[in-house]
Amino acid sequence: MKIIFLGSGNLATRLSLEMHRKGMQIGQVYSHTPENAQQLAALLGCPWTTDPETVDTDADLYVFSLKDTVLADVIARVRPNEGLWVHTAGSMPMDVFNGHTANYGVLYPMQTFSKTREVDFNVIPFFLEANTSENAGKLQHLAEKLSGNIRFLSSDKRKSLHLAAVFACNFTNHIYALAVKLLEEQDIPADVLLPLIDETAAKIHTMPPRVAQTGPAIRYDENVINKHLAMLGDSDMRSIYRLISQSIHKEAQHE
Amino acid sequence: MKIIFLGSGNLATRLSLEMHRKGMQIGQVYSHTPENAQQLAALLGCPWTTDPETVDTDADLYVFSLKDTVLADVIARVRPNEGLWVHTAGSMPMDVFNGHTANYGVLYPMQTFSKTREVDFNVIPFFLEANTSENAGKLQHLAEKLSGNIRFLSSDKRKSLHLAAVFACNFTNHIYALAVKLLEEQDIPADVLLPLIDETAAKIHTMPPRVAQTGPAIRYDENVINKHLAMLGDSDMRSIYRLISQSIHKEAQHE
Repeated sequence: MKIIFLGSGNLATRLSLEMHRKGMQIGQVYSHTPENAQQLAALLGCPWTTDPETVDTDADLYVFSLKDTVLADVIARVRPNEGLWVHTAGSMPMDVFNGHTANYGVLYPMQTFSKTREVDFNVIPFFLEANTSENAGKLQHLAEKLSGNIRFLSSDKRKSLHLAAVFACNFTNHIYALAVKLLEEQDIPADVLLPLIDETAAKIHTMPPRVAQTGPAIRYDENVINKHLAMLGDSDMRSIYRLISQSIHKEAQHE
Repeated sequence: MKIIFLGSGNLATRLSLEMHRKGMQIGQVYSHTPENAQQLAALLGCPWTTDPETVDTDADLYVFSLKDTVLADVIARVRPNEGLWVHTAGSMPMDVFNGHTANYGVLYPMQTFSKTREVDFNVIPFFLEANTSENAGKLQHLAEKLSGNIRFLSSDKRKSLHLAAVFACNFTNHIYALAVKLLEEQDIPADVLLPLIDETAAKIHTMPPRVAQTGPAIRYDENVINKHLAMLGDSDMRSIYRLISQSIHKEAQHE
């Protein structure tokens, strides 16, 4: 089985390296940026190209792992072939492939990837979709080699899932960044936050976040809330503080 | 050594149970609410009261673990004595005790507590403050029995620390709740988010959150951002999405 990767970002890097590690043959890497293509191809020990029209047509699987804004364009420029084409984007429908090739689907690993950080693929939930039951079978067979946590999901539901992931991961991480900034301003080492951050994440393995909620907003402790708002001055952090506190309070009233 | 707890909430419950477990004698529990006082006293095997004026005056340590709004009032009603009085609030200055008793300080464990969930006290950062060096010594001796992670911090810096904790824990947890809500609307089981949430927290043990940031806002992928905003309609979640995405984008431009 020969696999071609289109993309060389965080997800493409971690997913292709995991496939390589599992003994799958990566035959070629495409990236718009020569340095990135070369760097990933060197890790995988395979050739690379920056021209979608020179992507080999004899592979079994094509993994498109590109920014949403360029995905359709690259798909249109790869020569149609017999291989199975999949993209890895939570936010893009499967039918972005429609009219460009015969066999296609989606392989969406819901995780945050950074190029240099190893992650345990076996626990990553993979969400699959395919245009025929035969392609679904092929994709499932492949995904089962990567993770013990796979399921099929429609493009429409995957869109909501991806939005939820943006909250749970990207927004959470930015909230961490804002907390670290507050500590840095006071010369307090940021790592004092780690036990609290770990426990906040661990807690919701045993109770829903609604039940796990603590702090001034859920108690509606206006005294503390107003002191905090005053400390934040006129910053974006103040608006974020106010909005999230209001949202916590509203949810509590619905209980 | 005899300890009296004033309060019966999440923090008071977990901290008093931990002290009890470590062999410290809890002599009395005060709570405004008889049911809560009774319930905690039963767990600790000690008497309880709902009247601050009947709190024993012969204890060595008084732990005030109360809502900020009632703390000063209860402090004023407990009869002055020779014991060391501490509160456990991140947001309150130490001098709330000033003029009410001779020996006082702060014992702030920075963690999220729920009554029924056990936590590992040994990793919890404890932030201490005391009005004399002798009281500082006593408090340090006590805190060292509870945690391997203690340090002294002024009231002023603790205020910022507490604000950072509200972001890192309370706001993070609410962001989790919003993500779960999006999945529930689509009948997708909420636990598919757990590997992502765990990795988001684990990642910042090895890199600062600024560096760990992924997702549409840091890529400034307006295509995805606008689709997400449209999906969220006119809700509070839409305002939160917009504000946090803008904040992520601004931070990225400062790099």
